[in-house]
Amino acid sequence: MSDFTVTERTQVKRLPKRGAYDRETVYKILDEAFVCHVGFVVDGQPYVIPTNFGRAGDTLYLHGSAASRMLRTLSEGVPVCVTVTLVDGLVLARSAFHHSVNYRSVVVLGTARLVDDSTEKLEALRLFTEHIMKGRWDEIRRPNQQEMKATTVLALPLEEVSAKIRTGGPNDDEEDYSLPVWAGVLPLPVTPGAPIADARLRSGTPVPEHVAKYSR
Amino acid sequence: MSDFTVTERTQVKRLPKRGAYDRETVYKILDEAFVCHVGFVVDGQPYVIPTNFGRAGDTLYLHGSAASRMLRTLSEGVPVCVTVTLVDGLVLARSAFHHSVNYRSVVVLGTARLVDDSTEKLEALRLFTEHIMKGRWDEIRRPNQQEMKATTVLALPLEEVSAKIRTGGPNDDEEDYSLPVWAGVLPLPVTPGAPIADARLRSGTPVPEHVAKYSR
Repeated sequence: MSDFTVTERTQVKRLPKRGAYDRETVYKILDEAFVCHVGFVVDGQPYVIPTNFGRAGDTLYLHGSAASRMLRTLSEGVPVCVTVTLVDGLVLARSAFHHSVNYRSVVVLGTARLVDDSTEKLEALRLFTEHIMKGRWDEIRRPNQQEMKATTVLALPLEEVSAKIRTGGPNDDEEDYSLPVWAGVLPLPVTPGAPIADARLRSGTPVPEHVAKYSR
Repeated sequence: MSDFTVTERTQVKRLPKRGAYDRETVYKILDEAFVCHVGFVVDGQPYVIPTNFGRAGDTLYLHGSAASRMLRTLSEGVPVCVTVTLVDGLVLARSAFHHSVNYRSVVVLGTARLVDDSTEKLEALRLFTEHIMKGRWDEIRRPNQQEMKATTVLALPLEEVSAKIRTGGPNDDEEDYSLPVWAGVLPLPVTPGAPIADARLRSGTPVPEHVAKYSR
């Protein structure tokens, strides 16, 4: 797969070796995560709001209530930044200075457009559900007309995009390696717990495979 | 503990019952998380960057390389938004529309100041380390003069702050409860894996308690 074009705004300047611009890396991070942080500006004040998202090719979809300030602001076509971060572990060095976090992040800059075509909108809603949990869409009640109307969907093109990745153990100063300090990485995986059935679950409804075997 | 004063900018308008403004709730979320997303504006473009943080009372500390664009921009005293999000689980409803995520988030609006007093700066560096891993500071080599110089520390007052929390199972439409769809919550806890020792670990260095028994 080809690379995203690096721009002055997406070039990773600090620690450039951590930067990545290839679609494979970017897609993988976006598809493993399911929460993004959306940045937008109102009256000069930046706001950063967590939300879910979906992806189809080079389009990132955002959605929410038609009444949400974020959705209303973004649908006006203002500059937006969507950031996705996966935390993989704590990097424990011998010195305070070299402590770090192993992570994979993607930053998308651009302008979103309102999705008003009903076919694209329904497909985006399918993507949101499938992005959170693959296999779920085929089992649930799909959106009706009223729900479609109450939901705003925005499409953000993946054009100005960069990824940043830190992996591996600590990089200590040479003279610190002799210190009697435990150093290494503490992995912090997200591990699904046991599913908690809804109190009003219809009796005899089994836990489906897509829930029981969920992983990201 | 007292509440933060609700402002026009921090009032949770959509689903107001999810909003919280009391210090106890806000502190708890901030102290459980260790990654925040920092939003700032350069030439009208918002940027959202993940980073670590520390907290002492009503002050949030950010830090990074003195060469970082984010730190340089913020130290000029521009408006900033710091958002912290903890994801607790997936809320699986009977309809696509009512799918959700259980989460706890905090949004802080304000203006950061550069910390140049060396006592406050060193204390902030201690807080970063202890925030990532309690008990670590006493075992590691502390920052030297050169490292202190290479690090920029910013203080953001916790004044304009709100929390937003979603808990519990799905809220389905009454007529959907009879559908033969499994519904409930899939918890997504962060569970530390086995510590991975650094390849150059001094032989015989035991894994300390603060690593072996790590939890958030």
